[in-house]
This record gives sequence, structure tokens and C-alpha cells, in this order.
Amino acid sequence: MLKTPIITLTTDFGLKDPFAGLMKGVILSINPDVTIIDITHDIQRHNIFEASQVLAMSYTYFPPATINIAVVDPGVGSTRRPILVVTENQYFIGPDNGIFSAVMEEENADFLTVYHLTSPHYFLPVKGSTFHGRDIFAPVAAWLSKGVDSRKFGAQINDYAKIPVPKPEISGNSITGEIVSVDNFGNAISNIKRDDIEKVAPPESGGTLKVVYSNNELPVVSFYSQDKSPDLSAVINSFGHLELFVYLHSAAEKFNINRGDKIFVTII
Amino acid sequence: MLKTPIITLTTDFGLKDPFAGLMKGVILSINPDVTIIDITHDIQRHNIFEASQVLAMSYTYFPPATINIAVVDPGVGSTRRPILVVTENQYFIGPDNGIFSAVMEEENADFLTVYHLTSPHYFLPVKGSTFHGRDIFAPVAAWLSKGVDSRKFGAQINDYAKIPVPKPEISGNSITGEIVSVDNFGNAISNIKRDDIEKVAPPESGGTLKVVYSNNELPVVSFYSQDKSPDLSAVINSFGHLELFVYLHSAAEKFNINRGDKIFVTII
Amino acid sequence: MLKTPIITLTTDFGLKDPFAGLMKGVILSINPDVTIIDITHDIQRHNIFEASQVLAMSYTYFPPATINIAVVDPGVGSTRRPILVVTENQYFIGPDNGIFSAVMEEENADFLTVYHLTSPHYFLPVKGSTFHGRDIFAPVAAWLSKGVDSRKFGAQINDYAKIPVPKPEISGNSITGEIVSVDNFGNAISNIKRDDIEKVAPPESGGTLKVVYSNNELPVVSFYSQDKSPDLSAVINSFGHLELFVYLHSAAEKFNINRGDKIFVTII
Repeated sequence: MLKTPIITLTTDFGLKDPFAGLMKGVILSINPDVTIIDITHDIQRHNIFEASQVLAMSYTYFPPATINIAVVDPGVGSTRRPILVVTENQYFIGPDNGIFSAVMEEENADFLTVYHLTSPHYFLPVKGSTFHGRDIFAPVAAWLSKGVDSRKFGAQINDYAKIPVPKPEISGNSITGEIVSVDNFGNAISNIKRDDIEKVAPPESGGTLKVVYSNNELPVVSFYSQDKSPDLSAVINSFGHLELFVYLHSAAEKFNINRGDKIFVTII
Repeated sequence: MLKTPIITLTTDFGLKDPFAGLMKGVILSINPDVTIIDITHDIQRHNIFEASQVLAMSYTYFPPATINIAVVDPGVGSTRRPILVVTENQYFIGPDNGIFSAVMEEENADFLTVYHLTSPHYFLPVKGSTFHGRDIFAPVAAWLSKGVDSRKFGAQINDYAKIPVPKPEISGNSITGEIVSVDNFGNAISNIKRDDIEKVAPPESGGTLKVVYSNNELPVVSFYSQDKSPDLSAVINSFGHLELFVYLHSAAEKFNINRGDKIFVTII
Repeated sequence: MLKTPIITLTTDFGLKDPFAGLMKGVILSINPDVTIIDITHDIQRHNIFEASQVLAMSYTYFPPATINIAVVDPGVGSTRRPILVVTENQYFIGPDNGIFSAVMEEENADFLTVYHLTSPHYFLPVKGSTFHGRDIFAPVAAWLSKGVDSRKFGAQINDYAKIPVPKPEISGNSITGEIVSVDNFGNAISNIKRDDIEKVAPPESGGTLKVVYSNNELPVVSFYSQDKSPDLSAVINSFGHLELFVYLHSAAEKFNINRGDKIFVTII
């Protein structure tokens, strides 16, 4: 464990209600020495896919032993299980609804262990219906941050839920991908990564990238302000993903780009 | 005092302006070892009632000695007094406008003491008009977190302001309550608590709960996903309050539910 | 350096994306003992002026040695330089696009030093295009908070970018100023300060303040609730700025007040 353990929060609670705040109260009641970091509380309501993408985008920037709580949980209260996912370097706590699928895709399967959280000893005692974020995920994260062994929280499971993580299709010198998210600036981010492109054409091969969206070939630049035109351009963004943008404007709004839209790359 | 003291913030500042941020600067300038937790800064502007409900919903999840600052303060600068409320376990600092009324209802009156904050020794020295959140509440909270005795901040008062906290009316086997808040998911929360229901009919009596809203009897379930119909249902939520919801939708929007709407419970 | 160093964040990232969260991960990976405070992440997209005003309004409430990161950065990735500004008491890290101009106006020029951040030793190693907030500003702030000497990050420069900071014009007993920002409550804040007014007429001179906006003379009060009329009033706010307000309403919305609108003060 870290001397100052870190717990991150990713939820669809919004910021108006006190839900995120009181989860922090529960955590600090158990371990006052933890640092709690909000990733976001503005995941679209009940959008498990969006949460999974945000988690996959964020966690590698945190130090080893970071504990990540995620709560986007339309099935709360049902038989949907609460789980702890242990990867090679970090911990993930949340509902067993596929929210960690995109993280798992990035992680070494040999080091992946999933526990069903069943030990009430580490839960907040509550009467009546359960708010898993407050009553299970927050206290389990706090106890974990104090050094409690993962195996104490429940039995290992292998039949945990998965959601589809869309992957680009590579065929010859072509890649077919899709838009997986739109950020605050209206940039539309695809699932095509630099690694995919380099697999098709190593940088030293000197190939030229051709990007097609909605039947139009787009200029490909190295950074945003390199193309100040009012039209759509493509860039490999700072997360290594191929992204569509309009300089200083919302590409998604201006060109009505949505999640799932196809994007085609050819290296010639 | 806690080794790592906790100060919480509940305001109507929003998150665009730097007001909450600079209050934290004032606190950390006095006590760098404090942990500051945002409950919310999105209380509806000037809505003292909403803030009082959010505080009552949150504070019990924080450890003893937590210091809670609340700033929803249309009367700032006038003769409206700044106060410190000391309860059996925690501290509350804010304007004397009734913002702590709902908390006080929950707390043991024998342990309740209210101080009028008058000692400028613990205020931020400012020229001209005062921003109480920054100039009085934040520094007093910080000094309190360093162990300064409550009595040093000013004299005890008994004529502090109160706002009405709507309570359910119990008559025979019937309870009449009302909607007191709507959360981010559009769930409409009433002031009828499990305790009220159990007072009318203890769990062992095996009575059946009949919930009527807007002349319709609603199905009563144990958790959200138990009723996936597009109609209104009732549940006793994880805070022990009777709540109206529509699975995966905003009940408040769909059925135009507002604060103050009546809700009727009968146990038969 | 402080025992518990403070790093503040001011950005236009919004709170939906994980950008602010993952910057905190980068910081804590380098220095786990830092306290990170959000000033705001809701600066209007690409609005460097707004960010500069927010920074100038906030930083003086933080203790000496505070490190302030600001990221409003339409030119990211281009030749726009990353800089570290060292003032008499604090540090400012961000893009060289004038974002610190308003702070610099307030600070003693004799103690002002600006460094071009060029030493990759203190950057996050990344492949491909750079997200300066994550890859340069966050890690440099973290290393600075651990006591690395400012001169290690790059060479001193003098040709840093400036943006115009509108200043009131004083002529005889008249001051012409303008609206520089509108807060969450719809209060319209001008660039005319108490100091400007006292320069024209010292408090002991007993002059009367006449405030004219949009050809109307406004009542001038000492605090908001002193004028509960539905009309526009003026107050010297708690930051020492002349401000236009309507009690419990948004003055900016009600009277369509915008940044740049002129405001006239005469002391008679």
C-alpha cells in the first residue's frame, strides 16, 4: 500500500446531490489518511459504456496501488454482484455490470483476479435497501487502502459480466474503426490507436495516412492549431487515439458526429 | 480534534466562479493539515431549504468532530448573524438563517449549543464589504480544526433562526407526507421515513403498505430494478425515505412531481 | 516549500471528461504529499481572458509558495511555449498565451521571473502529440512542489505573451470603467476598484459616489440586502470591485449586461 493511498471516484451521480460527498465521508471515517480524487461524476446517467471508456482513459496516470471506485449502476439492489478487480498494478471496485471491461482489455489477463464482495464485516451496516456506492464500494475501498488482503472481501469469481469493447478491424493496409466518445471540446475520439496504425505501417515505412469519415477524406495534422480551417480534420490525439476535430469549435456539433459512426483509415 | 480534521462545504456558488476554491485557500492558509470535502456547490441559488435537506442527508456519514460549512446566504452583509452550531458529535458553521434547522431536528437538543461568531480575532481581515464564506466561516472553521475552543468565537445564543422542516402527519394507520427533494436521477424523495411507517405498523405486524400519489395507488418494491415498468413506483430508499421513481427514467419529469406534493401512506 | 504543498488548477476542461482527474494522478505519482485544489474547470472554452481574471481574483487567498496551474490553451501543440512564472510569493505554470497577465499586473515587477519550460527531464514521457496540462504543467508543478529549483526547468525569458488587462481611466473626479466578468449569481463585476475611487476621493473627503450605467444613475449600497428593489443597484463587492446587482436576481440577465459594457463613476 502507498503511504498516502489514493482512491478515485467515477460515477453518474452529478454534482448537485450529496452522494459523492457522503461516500467520501464513509471512506474518511475508516481511513482518514487517504487522498480521494474525483475522475468525474458526470457520466451520462446509467451509461456503463461511457464510464468504462473514461476509466480506461484515466487509470494509467495514477500510481500503482491506486484504488478506483466506479458507480454507474442501474441494477443496484438486485442480484447484480458487487466486485473487486485486482490487476497487475491497481484495484477496481464497483458493480458487476461490465463497467471494467475496457480496463480489463488493456491489462495482462495473467494478473487479473475478480472477487465477489460478500463479507459484510467490511460493509457499512445499514437497515433496508442498499446504496452500494456508500454501503459496499466506499467502505471496501477504505479497508483495502488500510492494507486488508483482497481475499478477505469475498470469493474469487470467473463469470463476471463483460460489455463489448469495440475494436478496430484491420485488413491489409486498411483499418475500420468507430467513434467511441466526444469530449468537452466537441472532439470526436475513435477507437483507432497509433499502435493499430503502426501495426499496418511502421513509422519507418514512410506511408501516408488517409482518413475517411462520412465519405470525405480529411486532412491529417500533428496538433490542433496546425489546421485552423472551419472544416473537419484528423489528429492522433495525446491519448494515442485518432480523433476528429475543428479548430476552436465543436466538431461533434458542427458535423453531427455520434458514437458508433464509422471511420476508415488506409496507409498508402 | 481529529489528527486529520475534516471540513465539508455546502454552497450555492456553482463551480464556474472561484469562490469555493478561494475559501479552501483561506482554510489551508490557517491549517494546512485539514482535508476539505465538497458536499455540493450546486444548491439552487438562495434556496436555504434545499441546503438544509442536503446537510441533514449527509453529515451522519462523516466522522465525529467533522466541521460542516454551509453558505446559502441571501442576507449576507446585513445584520444576519454568522453562527457556529455545536451538536453532540459535529460542528456546523454558516449564516443564522435556518440552514441548519433540519440537522437540529435530528440531533439531541440537550447537546446543542449555538454561538454567535463575533470575535474578529478569528476572521480574515478585510476592507469593505464582507463575504462571510471567505472572511468568517472559512477562517473560523480552520481555527476550530486547530483545536480553538468553541466559546472563543463568540457568545452563546438561543434566539437563532429556524425554518419549517415539514414533518409527516400520522393519524391512526395513515401517514400524510410530502415530497421534499428530487435527485439527479429524477427520483422524488418524501419526508416519510421507515421509522414513521414502523411506528404505525411494526415490521412484525405484517401489514401491507399502500402508497397513494396524485389519486393513484403505486406499487411498492424493495429496489429499483424490481419494477421495470414505465409507470411510477414507490420504494423505501437507501436513506430510509419513501421515494417515487420510474426505472431508468426521471419520475419527476415524467409525472411532473414537485416539492410539496402530497403523498399518502396507509398500512392495512 | 510548504510541508504540505498546494497546487491549484484552473482550466476549461469541464467536469465531464477525466482530464482534470488524470492531471491529479500525474501530480500524485510524483509527489503524493501535495494538496490539490480546484479553482474551476468551467472557464468558457478557450477564453484566456476569463481565466486570467479568475486567477487574479483567487491566488492571493492561498498561502505563500502555492503553485497555480492554468490550462486554457487553444494553441496547444504549436510553438506556443509552456512557462513557469515566479512572483514574490507564488508560482504559476501554464501556456505562454497571456493567461497570467492579470496576475502580473498585481505583482511587484521586481520579483517577477518567467522561465520557458524546456527540460524534458521533468516532463511525463509521452509518444506523439502532447497534452501540456498532463505532460508538462502537472509534472513540473509536482517536481516544483518537491523543492526542485525553478531554474532547473528552463531558461529565463522576457518576451512572454501579454493580453490587454482593461484598466479604468481616471480623469479629474471621474472614472470610466467596464464590466469584466459576470458571476454565478448574475452580478456584473467591473474593473473599477475601491483603490481607484479612493485615489480620486479619499474616504475622509466625504464625497458622494455617483454611478451611471446605460444612462441611468444607480443607487449605491453597502451590501446586497440593503436594496431589495427589482432594479439595478451598485455595491463595492467583497473583492473591492464596483459591481452591479439586483437583489436575489441575475442583474446580467435582467438588464442584459455584458463584458465590455461601460460604467461611469463620479465623486461629487
